[in-house]
Order: sequence, then C-alpha cells, then structure tokens
Amino acid sequence: GSYYQRLLGPCQRQKQTKQQDKNREKRIKRNEQSLQAIWDYVKRPNIRLIGVPECDGENEFKLENTLQDIIQENFANLAKQDTIQPQAIQRTPQRYSSRRPTPRHIIVRFTKIETKEKILRAAREKDQVTHKGKPIRLTADLSTETLQARREWGPIFNILNQQNFQPRISYPANLSFTFEGKIKSFRNKQVLRDFITTRPALQELLKEALYTERNNQYDPF
Amino acid sequence: GSYYQRLLGPCQRQKQTKQQDKNREKRIKRNEQSLQAIWDYVKRPNIRLIGVPECDGENEFKLENTLQDIIQENFANLAKQDTIQPQAIQRTPQRYSSRRPTPRHIIVRFTKIETKEKILRAAREKDQVTHKGKPIRLTADLSTETLQARREWGPIFNILNQQNFQPRISYPANLSFTFEGKIKSFRNKQVLRDFITTRPALQELLKEALYTERNNQYDPF
Amino acid sequence: GSYYQRLLGPCQRQKQTKQQDKNREKRIKRNEQSLQAIWDYVKRPNIRLIGVPECDGENEFKLENTLQDIIQENFANLAKQDTIQPQAIQRTPQRYSSRRPTPRHIIVRFTKIETKEKILRAAREKDQVTHKGKPIRLTADLSTETLQARREWGPIFNILNQQNFQPRISYPANLSFTFEGKIKSFRNKQVLRDFITTRPALQELLKEALYTERNNQYDPF
Repeated sequence: GSYYQRLLGPCQRQKQTKQQDKNREKRIKRNEQSLQAIWDYVKRPNIRLIGVPECDGENEFKLENTLQDIIQENFANLAKQDTIQPQAIQRTPQRYSSRRPTPRHIIVRFTKIETKEKILRAAREKDQVTHKGKPIRLTADLSTETLQARREWGPIFNILNQQNFQPRISYPANLSFTFEGKIKSFRNKQVLRDFITTRPALQELLKEALYTERNNQYDPF
Repeated sequence: GSYYQRLLGPCQRQKQTKQQDKNREKRIKRNEQSLQAIWDYVKRPNIRLIGVPECDGENEFKLENTLQDIIQENFANLAKQDTIQPQAIQRTPQRYSSRRPTPRHIIVRFTKIETKEKILRAAREKDQVTHKGKPIRLTADLSTETLQARREWGPIFNILNQQNFQPRISYPANLSFTFEGKIKSFRNKQVLRDFITTRPALQELLKEALYTERNNQYDPF
Repeated sequence: GSYYQRLLGPCQRQKQTKQQDKNREKRIKRNEQSLQAIWDYVKRPNIRLIGVPECDGENEFKLENTLQDIIQENFANLAKQDTIQPQAIQRTPQRYSSRRPTPRHIIVRFTKIETKEKILRAAREKDQVTHKGKPIRLTADLSTETLQARREWGPIFNILNQQNFQPRISYPANLSFTFEGKIKSFRNKQVLRDFITTRPALQELLKEALYTERNNQYDPF
C-alpha cells in the first residue's frame, strides 16, 4: 500500500486512515469477544462457592473435605449416586475487595462438565445452600467479562421484574422477557434500544435505565 | 513521552504517530494469532460429528448412546480395546446456516487426546463413516480461525491436486506439496507467492488462484 | 458520535482522536494480559521436561515410558503413592533454536493439577533431576509471555541475589525481595522504579539494570 499512498491527496489519505481506524477498532472488539468466550469455555467444568469462611492452614486436602461436607449437607442424594471428586480446588488468588473482610471464593473444577451441571441444578431447586447451617452461594464460574455484561442489565432487570415481564439472563449475557405473550431475547442494550423505539409504553418504562451508562462501564464512544 | 512530544515538529510527530500505528497493528495481529492458537489448544481433545440427524428430546445421555452406536458401527475394534467415554458431549449452540435445515454438529470431548487421535486415524482408514447406514463426517474440532485459513487454500489445493503435486493441509493451516521431488511447506499465501517468483511454471499455474482474494477474507490493507 | 463529530473544530477533533488512541492502546494491552493469563491457566496441569534426548521412532507410548523411568529414577516415593498417568505427552512442535541441536522439550499434561504440583515440589527438594544418570530440568509449563516477563527481571534478580536481598520470582512474573526486614513484591519494573525513587541506596544499586531495556523487549513508547 505505501507506494499508492504517496500518490494520494491529503483528503483521501485522511479517509484511508479513518477506514484503518475502523478496521482496527473492529478487530480489537473481536479479540475482546473471543477472549470472553474462551474464558467461559475453559471455566465450564467449574463451580464457585461464595461465602465459605477461610481457616488457618487451609490446603487442597482440607478444601476437598469442605466440599464433601457441603455436598452431604445439601445434596445427599447426589453424593449417593456419584463419587463427586474434583480435578482441582482452590481459593481465588486475591480478595475481591481488600477493604471488606469477605472470604475469598472457592473454585472447584470437576472432570466432567455434567457433574457441575448436576450440582447447579440441585442448588437451583433448593431455597438455600448452607455450610454448617450458614447460607453460602453456589454459582457457575463465568469470565469477568460475562459477569460484567450481566451486571449491566441489573437496573433494567429489576424494573422488568417489578412489572411482571418475567426477565431472565441466559448465557452468556442475554436478557430475555415476555412481551405480548412471546419471549424476546436481547444480546445487548443497543438491540433492546432498537426494539423499544416502536413500543412507546416499554420505552417510557425503560428510558432512564437504558440510556444512563454506569460509571464503571468501558465505552470509548 | 508527552513532554518530548511537545518539542517535536509536525513532521516528526506524524512519523511518530505512524510508528505507533504500526506497533499497534502488530500487537492486534499477535493477539489474533494467539487467540487462534489457544482455541485450537483447548479443543484438542474434541471431535466433531457432522450430519447426524437431531431428534426430539435429545439430551447428553441420548447423545452418548448415539456416539457409542457410531463407534460400534464403524470402529468395532476400537470399542473392544478401550472404553471410549466422553468427558462432555453436546450439539453446537446454533445452526451454522439458519436457512438450510442441516443438523447441528455434535462436539465430543474426550478425557485423553489419544482417544481422539485413535478415532480420527481409524476414520481416515475407512472409505466412509456412517450412522445407521447413512454417511456422516467426523473431523477434528478446530478454531473458526484455523478453519477459515484452511478454506483460503481451497482453489490452490484443487489446482495442485489436479496436476498431481499431492497437496496436503497440516496443522494449523499449512499447505505442503511435492515439488521437484521434495516436500515444500507454506505457512500462508505470501510465503508461497515469494517461492514461485523464481519458478515460472508454477507461477503460471497458480497465478490466478493466488492473487484473487476471496470476498469474505478480512484484509485491512 | 459521528453527528456531533462534524460540529467539532479541528482542535477538539484532534483531542478526541488522541483519547480514542489511548483507549485503544488500553484495550490492546488488556487483551494481551488476558491472553497471557489464559495460556497460563490452560497449561496449569502441565510440566515441561528439558534436556531429554530425542530418539528414533519416538511416539506417545515411548514418551510415557520415558516419563515413568524418570519418576522411578528421581521420585520413587511418589510412584509408590500414586499411579501417575498423564492425560497427554508430546514433544514441543519445533526446536527452539534450529541452530543448536538441543532436544525439543517434552510437555506432560496430567489429569489433576495436584499431580503436577507434587512432582514439582519433589523436584525442588532434590539437588538434581536426572534421566539415565544425566541431568535434566523439570519446570512448570508457563506461557511464553510469562516466561519473557520473568526473563526481564534477570539482571536485577542477579544484583539483588549478590547483595543478599533474597530475591524470588512468583506467579506470574512478580519479583519480591527482603528490604528493611519486610518482603516487598513488584508486578513490573515501573512499580519498582517508583519504589526506589525515595531509596537512594537501592536506586544506586539497580539504576543501570532497571533503566536499560533489553533489545528483544517490545515497548512501543
């Protein structure tokens, strides 16, 4: 390209630079999406235990005992059917907030993705999962990008929930809800914005939540 | 750098911007290549079954039965030697083309990479792999980027094949063929273009296929 | 954004371009870091055997025997406790330096991360690991980015070591050493540079090593 470039006028050169910028922007975006997808892919056999207190001299062996206790306490049936042996188990590297003294999450990796799914399904059917009687949380181990994208739906999800639209978040970070008897699914806010332009009632309801960006969101434009 | 930047003339500043652009371009490219490589890396234990009809109420359990049927029907010897148990088995998330009603691919993940390799080797030795008598295809589960890069060689591969150059595609997307008694291998079209500049016969043969880019290829320059 | 862009003067437009450039730079950097992290993540169950001679007709079966020989020769106790069976074992794709005829590394992937950790711990406790009496090396299988980042600390590590600061490299590529009775940890050279500005003795010691970049380092600014 450099030979032809020298023959171009300043206006054409500027146009070309803009086109290159746009292409680069697109490729960076695609890399970001691919990274989100591969993190989710490699974390598929994992679950995350939130709220289990840390204790002194904790090691992989003790953490595995804790896991077996939790399974016995909450999913005794599952424990009878299978030997649920993790491939790896560890605390997350650092505390999420160094100010609040919450215990670090425990990441459990299973050999089979099916084991994770069975446990998550059983957890969803229970009102509460506990460890030594105290409530803990048990979730899929998603990429930080996917978790961030899900959090972005928060205010909209709450409004739709209050108004009985039966909102749901599905993988990776799609919002779906029931509208005029049908389930509608939205990949991101822009798609939802486009959808409501011709639905004034919905627009009125979501306007504020849909057009204010959270401060922590990264948006270059 | 910003302090020194203020001291530079417009010409030097332009030169600096160009250098920064070039560096950025290189880093984006490197990220793309690393993403391709890691997708291929994590998909190494997988095979892809193409053309197996979808049926109602399909679940992981039924898909595993389908896999065992296919192994019995085509690789009875393998089944005797090993218990071929997948770590995970599922349909691809969405149809590749929503217009054509082709069944979604089945992705099977094995615990050992060796299991995948044994099955692929056995498949290559057979004329045809079948499911209930009907032909299906069985391939490695490569990244979309690698598949795209392999498809790019298509027209050149066909010409070389017709002319008995015995072309082959090897991992990830290298084209090799026999030339003057030796096997030559090419990482991409540019390397092949450089090679043929001093081989007029080969140049004549491949000129057209090598210099026309496909429309769907992404090329910023 | 494009509608408002047309209303801006050239100065504001230039400012906006700069901001976009900065954002893009940040996102490329974040993608690079995420790629480094995911490569390290997927390679966690692996060890790397360095210096084991290659032999003719080497295949996965023979490599597994070599591994079992090495374990017997060096970690007989470990072998008694567990059956250490790899999930995959292979040579690295190409030689690192095509000029020196060193054997390619062997990458062993275990099913459990724990197995890798046990072996590495046992190796650290021995003075020397051998294969048929000759010394070999046994390391974690880190991403090329992490290895590069660790190598960058080389000259500084050596100086600190000579001066009894007890330097250590921890995951992924943090340098820590003992200073005034406390262990200090540094994520990269810039953080260390900031730290020593108010410690003249340390500054004097590290100045040269800390401010000369190696030629092979990529640094766009």
